[in-house]
Amino acid sequence: MQVAMIQDKIVPMAELEPIYFDRAIYFGDGVYEVVRSYDGKIFALEEHMARFARSLSAIGILGVDTAQIRSRVQKAFDNAGISNAKIYFHITRGSAPRNHSWDSNLGPNFFLTVTELDDDTKEKTEGIAVSTHPDLRWKRCDIKSLNLLPNVLARQDAIKKGNSEAILVDDSGLITEGAASAFFAIFDQALQTAPLTSNILPSITRKFVIEAGKIIGLEIVEESLTPQQAGGADELFTAVTTNDIVPVVRFDDGIIGDGKPGKYTKLLTQEFRSFTS
Amino acid sequence: MQVAMIQDKIVPMAELEPIYFDRAIYFGDGVYEVVRSYDGKIFALEEHMARFARSLSAIGILGVDTAQIRSRVQKAFDNAGISNAKIYFHITRGSAPRNHSWDSNLGPNFFLTVTELDDDTKEKTEGIAVSTHPDLRWKRCDIKSLNLLPNVLARQDAIKKGNSEAILVDDSGLITEGAASAFFAIFDQALQTAPLTSNILPSITRKFVIEAGKIIGLEIVEESLTPQQAGGADELFTAVTTNDIVPVVRFDDGIIGDGKPGKYTKLLTQEFRSFTS
Repeated sequence: MQVAMIQDKIVPMAELEPIYFDRAIYFGDGVYEVVRSYDGKIFALEEHMARFARSLSAIGILGVDTAQIRSRVQKAFDNAGISNAKIYFHITRGSAPRNHSWDSNLGPNFFLTVTELDDDTKEKTEGIAVSTHPDLRWKRCDIKSLNLLPNVLARQDAIKKGNSEAILVDDSGLITEGAASAFFAIFDQALQTAPLTSNILPSITRKFVIEAGKIIGLEIVEESLTPQQAGGADELFTAVTTNDIVPVVRFDDGIIGDGKPGKYTKLLTQEFRSFTS
Repeated sequence: MQVAMIQDKIVPMAELEPIYFDRAIYFGDGVYEVVRSYDGKIFALEEHMARFARSLSAIGILGVDTAQIRSRVQKAFDNAGISNAKIYFHITRGSAPRNHSWDSNLGPNFFLTVTELDDDTKEKTEGIAVSTHPDLRWKRCDIKSLNLLPNVLARQDAIKKGNSEAILVDDSGLITEGAASAFFAIFDQALQTAPLTSNILPSITRKFVIEAGKIIGLEIVEESLTPQQAGGADELFTAVTTNDIVPVVRFDDGIIGDGKPGKYTKLLTQEFRSFTS
């Protein structure tokens, strides 16, 4: 008899729910999105759905009706009744006995959660500390996949050091992005961030930050930075769906600016909020 | 209310089983092993347990009693009563609401399956075809983690092309290993395979193949090969726990040797089998 064991209990394999055979568990074989709402309204859902469709296609999960997924997201959000919510959802290739290759008629699994956003007032008003970490990720970071172990290990390293986020540095000594955020620097009146390549996620928040930057008259520079350059910036911040713009006031133990959120970071945050209302 | 959605059904988050919050699903945050039995006896369990302990430690899953895990593996195998079995097991960091960082008191999840091995007579007697694929994996392939999306995509590419395995080629044009196997070439009386670095898995089967090679008098060369060099080898084979040595008779559409399993490959297989009995 084919058996399974969960912790110390033996269970006939045939009795296990499909979730136990989800390819997400064995291979991280799926893609995800995180969207948030501001005061009862989901922000940039179209952009997130478009990226989700690209991720699905990039790993060959075919035939997903993204319009249907979009309405599920909306329905779950409406049902939860949380005004400032974080909505996480993924689609995996499906459930099947573990085997690297897959059968083309496997049915994808959809999963979503709607939860209350954490209060980020402190981070936003005081800023956060970050530390650098080698970027150990795979070569397709433009796909928002469930293979996030290097991100998780980098983030935990930052937490251990008393920081909030890890800033990833590639083999050539250039910053790619944060473990779970985009990364920006301001020098004089220029807003700088890494260019979109297969090494970073095409962040939706990044796109709106750049739009906000243009509106307030900043020059946009899409060029990678070294940690040394970042440490000498006038202002730094991370950008992430759940918290939009988060000021960075410490970078590898060096103080940025006067150790408080910078003026352009504040202006960008204001401008960003005009998009979300 | 915090809600979840599974396919198109809304479920209160509080009603979900812990498996739905396993960090394996969201991050691939776990490590695994595969062992097999030959005629009722698990092969090289000590070696696999030692590697498992190294993987756990490498990703910071602490406090696992590997002696206890070892006896669970044995118990499940005995219970299944399958003489030639494939035993898969993993430990994940545990179940918790999705968050990159983790709480140090999270309890790890153990999961195992014992299944019948597929019949590999055809592959062993006729050999398999393989094709090359870019190695897109992360920089710690020496850790046997659940982040296997690049492996899965490479394997599927091989299958689509009518082959059985993908042979991964890194940015410098060198073969690292197969998507789920070690890779060996024979030139005259030399047995060649990539050296152990953080770019490949320290394969247990590889270790026994090298031992078998020494016994039959082959020179052991631990140096990476280019695809061109591999295509010109006298013999090629992959090495994997579930099937030990699998002859490769086609490499990117080129015939290897006379298109049949080579003599040293056969000798190595015989020698390998002396270890397993």
